[in-house]
Amino acid sequence: MLKINTELKSYIAGFLDGDGCVMFQLIRRTDYRYGFQVKGSIVFYQKSNRKSYLEWLKTILKSGYIRVRKDGMAEYNIVELKSVMEILALLEPYVVLKKQHVKLAKNIQSLLSCEPKLEKLIEAAELVDRFGELNYSKRRTNTSLTLKAYLKEHNLYPRND
Amino acid sequence: MLKINTELKSYIAGFLDGDGCVMFQLIRRTDYRYGFQVKGSIVFYQKSNRKSYLEWLKTILKSGYIRVRKDGMAEYNIVELKSVMEILALLEPYVVLKKQHVKLAKNIQSLLSCEPKLEKLIEAAELVDRFGELNYSKRRTNTSLTLKAYLKEHNLYPRND
Repeated sequence: MLKINTELKSYIAGFLDGDGCVMFQLIRRTDYRYGFQVKGSIVFYQKSNRKSYLEWLKTILKSGYIRVRKDGMAEYNIVELKSVMEILALLEPYVVLKKQHVKLAKNIQSLLSCEPKLEKLIEAAELVDRFGELNYSKRRTNTSLTLKAYLKEHNLYPRND
Repeated sequence: MLKINTELKSYIAGFLDGDGCVMFQLIRRTDYRYGFQVKGSIVFYQKSNRKSYLEWLKTILKSGYIRVRKDGMAEYNIVELKSVMEILALLEPYVVLKKQHVKLAKNIQSLLSCEPKLEKLIEAAELVDRFGELNYSKRRTNTSLTLKAYLKEHNLYPRND
């Protein structure tokens, strides 16, 4: 369990609202039964000469990794779903711009922790589509339609719609 | 005097670190005795569809104005020096990335409040140059050299360097 004081939680919430990104994506996984994984991430960005700031953030948030991109930006990525959800839960009372992101992330998580899994995965994928809208993402390759097409092709699709 | 609770100050400090800009510039003023004004600003940016967020910030920080740019971005500008300094003083304990900006702003302000004014204005202009470096600004037209050239041209320059 992360222990972060209120001031620091507010600060990180502000920084996330200003510079950060919360996203959920469908990732193709050939080794997954239903062909796709729902992946959640929190990403913070800085020019690579301020990478030490991201390292400082990582000492607080504990998980994730930092990489320096070829375009001179550094990214701090938190990708483990448990960590992503724990951090979002801590920041939830303080974020302003990302309130909807946190709510949607919680809905996705609760669907993924349900049985029976496949129908809930489809519902979660539909919520993941909404993340693309929230983030004005234009490069989304896999949507709930991709998942449904895959499931139909493999005779796994449970519904008639 | 602004009254803002600790959580909100931390939040805004985080947002300023992530998305905001603190800058000082030399502005040419034909009606000023020494030809230039030192202008300080705090600016927050959002896509114009989230202009209401900037309006919310303005209800907290009280001063400044919001404008929508032609490129679809909205800017919340705080430009009155007294307000800029008051806000920076409130956020100072919480900012991380902008610590140097706040320190430099305070030094500029203390120079501007000194007598005799001209020598201190020149010193302040040199600190304003350092703001350009802090912000990686490439479009700076007026520097302390511009001010010095102006002062020499008008036989106002007090020193021999």
